[in-house]
Amino acid sequence: MKYRSTVGDDVEEMIEGMRLALKRADVVITTGGLGPTDDDLTKRALVKVFRRNLIFHEEIVTELKARFQRRGMEMPAINQNQALLPQGATAFPNTTGSAVGICLTESNRTMISLPGVPDEMRQILKDSVLPHLKTLRGRQPISIIKIRTTGIFESQLAEMIMPGLRPDPGVKLAYLPSQVGVDLRIVARGADDHDAEQKGKRLAQHIESICGKYVYGHDEETLEAVVGRLLMEKFTNLSVAESCTGGALGAQITSVPGSSTWFMGGVIAYDNSIKVSALDIPRELIESYGAVSEQCASAMAEGCRKRFATNYALAITGIAGPDGGSDDKPVGTTFVSLAGPEKTMVRKSNFGLSRPIVRARASQAALEMLRRDLLSIA
Amino acid sequence: MKYRSTVGDDVEEMIEGMRLALKRADVVITTGGLGPTDDDLTKRALVKVFRRNLIFHEEIVTELKARFQRRGMEMPAINQNQALLPQGATAFPNTTGSAVGICLTESNRTMISLPGVPDEMRQILKDSVLPHLKTLRGRQPISIIKIRTTGIFESQLAEMIMPGLRPDPGVKLAYLPSQVGVDLRIVARGADDHDAEQKGKRLAQHIESICGKYVYGHDEETLEAVVGRLLMEKFTNLSVAESCTGGALGAQITSVPGSSTWFMGGVIAYDNSIKVSALDIPRELIESYGAVSEQCASAMAEGCRKRFATNYALAITGIAGPDGGSDDKPVGTTFVSLAGPEKTMVRKSNFGLSRPIVRARASQAALEMLRRDLLSIA
Repeated sequence: MKYRSTVGDDVEEMIEGMRLALKRADVVITTGGLGPTDDDLTKRALVKVFRRNLIFHEEIVTELKARFQRRGMEMPAINQNQALLPQGATAFPNTTGSAVGICLTESNRTMISLPGVPDEMRQILKDSVLPHLKTLRGRQPISIIKIRTTGIFESQLAEMIMPGLRPDPGVKLAYLPSQVGVDLRIVARGADDHDAEQKGKRLAQHIESICGKYVYGHDEETLEAVVGRLLMEKFTNLSVAESCTGGALGAQITSVPGSSTWFMGGVIAYDNSIKVSALDIPRELIESYGAVSEQCASAMAEGCRKRFATNYALAITGIAGPDGGSDDKPVGTTFVSLAGPEKTMVRKSNFGLSRPIVRARASQAALEMLRRDLLSIA
Repeated sequence: MKYRSTVGDDVEEMIEGMRLALKRADVVITTGGLGPTDDDLTKRALVKVFRRNLIFHEEIVTELKARFQRRGMEMPAINQNQALLPQGATAFPNTTGSAVGICLTESNRTMISLPGVPDEMRQILKDSVLPHLKTLRGRQPISIIKIRTTGIFESQLAEMIMPGLRPDPGVKLAYLPSQVGVDLRIVARGADDHDAEQKGKRLAQHIESICGKYVYGHDEETLEAVVGRLLMEKFTNLSVAESCTGGALGAQITSVPGSSTWFMGGVIAYDNSIKVSALDIPRELIESYGAVSEQCASAMAEGCRKRFATNYALAITGIAGPDGGSDDKPVGTTFVSLAGPEKTMVRKSNFGLSRPIVRARASQAALEMLRRDLLSIA
């Protein structure tokens, strides 16, 4: 992507923005403004820019009506608007929402308009736009590799990687930090596709030879998918006991299709009484050490493993904040425990001050603890 | 916001982009490129555009070192870079990450550079940037109200609202649909702050008189926060039993600080054996009706309410996909049940075809069922 611009819900500004973009690039993608309501103006701008009429497509209405019907509802009349497309446009199917993507081509310029709802935009991009773009001539040979790490800071990674880094010409490395890990993105340009790919791979191999222990996956692979695959390959299974994460670890694990193969379930032991009743933790243990303690975390993991009769159990207990911290255990203090067939491990961390971040990091750290154990990485 | 543009990690493109933006607007905000690594170029562009030197700030390093120490780590030397700021810049504190925000002013133009990590950007925006912008002169009186709805389509809302809609001049209504609801955003401009506010409120009242039953909150209020407040006001509490959502409902509920007041915990009953062992559902019930059934959903809610001794219990069972659907129960089929002191309700829905969307909609629908019950909305 070379340029990106945003304008308001104003037809004149949209037309100006589209014209400028078509001057700058061969392919222009717009998002948003394809809904059925009055503030959805993209098609009005498109017909001005391309001097086309809007044509009514019966087949789109039929499909929309069927979609509403499957959800037990009648299609509101206003959705008829969404069957109007500029003359000569190709419709890209939207499998979850009501607005189809619109593709217009004129004098070797391509304009693609997608809905603004992120999930719908991504689906059409993946299913229709990217395959379409690959058919266009004149694109530059490029290879993109994403190396995904967790459990290490951006700056620590850079200190490990930078000495001795000699990428080929045309190869760039970018650090993309998020709250739960750092992605390393390699963009390699080459004489042809094969050359670009080889150059990218060379740098990736060099990087992974240095920091491989922190690398859990590549490109769009998630940690939960990687852990799930490892569990499945070992014909083993998992349960969870969650306090401060309140279900977020289970939700992350079950975001992977087919996770019922390796994931049995678990307990959200938010209140201490649940830790006692549903995980068999002695009340005295909580009274002596506190619910946020090494002892409680291990007992949660072991109690969970027993109750749910799984090979592995992960437990998380911590202080997500903003309240509940003390000098001894400040906000962010979290214990993650893994009970397995041979041993129980527990690790104390401080995951920072923000509630959502503490929770996200705790879930990620729990999965990473299991990944390393399954692969016997120290 | 009037314009937005994006450029690549290239100093020349960044300088050009900054200069153009400063011509177009009195205040320019940039995001990204403030990290410690080589590909973080924003400060290099800033010093060119504003012709300043980079000054080293000892106090920033001291604070950073303390931050790393609290997490039990030593600060990598490379993070020293982040203590370099253009001469005359104001630093806006970053409470979670290592890159401070940078504010530069020259000839009545203000340039603010924020880190690109979304949580960090938002925190600095909220804590420092917005308060700073309010001190600047010449801003236009404007009032923004967001009315948040769930359980109704954008097009259905529009059909209810549009007839008889007569907003004052300068007042605009936008529909912002997401997978779990539609926000209605009112932007009102007026002669002064009070006038803008009154105009906005007038339209909001009109809209809510029509579709109030679907309105759960305003502005940045979330459904889980609203439900939590209602539970707290009634001195009552909640537990959850989740199958296809795998913990997502519990995670949503506990995203609200202080949720331990009203939320006890629950069971992630992903595997059917857990539904039997942890929620006392008769095995024969699952064999007769299936785990995705009205009967199983009610039994989950009732079993959970009993086991966890709470006033209310929510249960979700469904087919999140992509596999597991049948003609009779296609992917997306979901049963949400609420067991309360007086009755147990259950509702069947089809939440579509995409796994993450089905799960998000199911959690939202469960909370909305509870909200309406607590408020006795039919």
